Amino acid sequence: MERPGGRTARVRAAVLRAAGDVLAEQGFAHLELSDLARRADVGKTTVYRRWGTVTAVVTDLLAEMAAESVPRTETGTLSGDLRANARLVLTTLTDPRQGPLFKAVIAAATCDDATAAALRGFYATRVAEWAPCVTQAVTRGEVPRGTDAEEVIRAVSAPLYYRLLTGTGDLDETTADRAAAAAVTAAVAGVFTSAGATAST
Amino acid sequence: MERPGGRTARVRAAVLRAAGDVLAEQGFAHLELSDLARRADVGKTTVYRRWGTVTAVVTDLLAEMAAESVPRTETGTLSGDLRANARLVLTTLTDPRQGPLFKAVIAAATCDDATAAALRGFYATRVAEWAPCVTQAVTRGEVPRGTDAEEVIRAVSAPLYYRLLTGTGDLDETTADRAAAAAVTAAVAGVFTSAGATAST
Repeated sequence: MERPGGRTARVRAAVLRAAGDVLAEQGFAHLELSDLARRADVGKTTVYRRWGTVTAVVTDLLAEMAAESVPRTETGTLSGDLRANARLVLTTLTDPRQGPLFKAVIAAATCDDATAAALRGFYATRVAEWAPCVTQAVTRGEVPRGTDAEEVIRAVSAPLYYRLLTGTGDLDETTADRAAAAAVTAAVAGVFTSAGATAST
Repeated sequence: MERPGGRTARVRAAVLRAAGDVLAEQGFAHLELSDLARRADVGKTTVYRRWGTVTAVVTDLLAEMAAESVPRTETGTLSGDLRANARLVLTTLTDPRQGPLFKAVIAAATCDDATAAALRGFYATRVAEWAPCVTQAVTRGEVPRGTDAEEVIRAVSAPLYYRLLTGTGDLDETTADRAAAAAVTAAVAGVFTSAGATAST
């Protein structure tokens, strides 16, 4: 006999995998619970009872993506850590499945509040995972005290997401390394301290 | 008697205004040619003959937005110019009509190639409008020769678009000024030269 937790977990994994497939291949507009049940080979009733709405599936998918996010790299320097972060974001956004999936989820979030909240939760988890590399750099004296660690992490991601979503500029290792280098340089100069934004211009 | 150009221009303005309203209020999925004709008080046949598809209307709207983009400010320093640029992007993205409109168009571009191409065209125009402030800074000796002017302009916008689309972090003047300050600091340090991305980390 199988433990109920095992079956529940398998159903969830199958439905979320199907949802990711549809999002990556066709976008948010094509997500339907009955189609997900068919693709996941799970009873329709189970899917309707457990999630109820397409939005709930996307929210759950984002929660799973946050939980599975790759642990941060520790290289011993801020520039090494942020470059690793930039390369990880690049790998994700240029992945043939993950890139379109992120585009679809971000697009869905622009017109659905529950998805937008789930997306914010996902990025909060990702940023919190990587922020310690900045606070450690503060401790090591690489960047000034008062540096906003989360802002630095977001600064590394921003140019890569900007390219993914606006289609302008390349999305390659040069761009990723430049995003990391720009964030390090600005952080060292104190731009990410509370006074830095006004003081440095 | 009215010149045909006058009427044609008025019809276009009315339809594009209606399209902008629908995009800002309800998103791309709710755009319909017959509804636009009704809102713009223009004959359905005219709208179908002139644009034919919803995508063509969005493409035309983006062309008009590019043509109407505010001329750049010239302050005499790179930091002044980039701060003005960041504040302009902020004003646009936090505007109650423009912000949702940009979200809707970017979301539409994630699942429609023609819209994506029009969006790239829009940003190419915007970036080209502002890039001279960086080339002038090179001439003045503020930043190194070989600085990629368009990359610097994109670096200023990226953190603001990242916030708009992921919902993480504030979208305020501090963020705008910090985006400008980070871009200036990185540009001065040579991060945006072709060798800079690898050399600075």
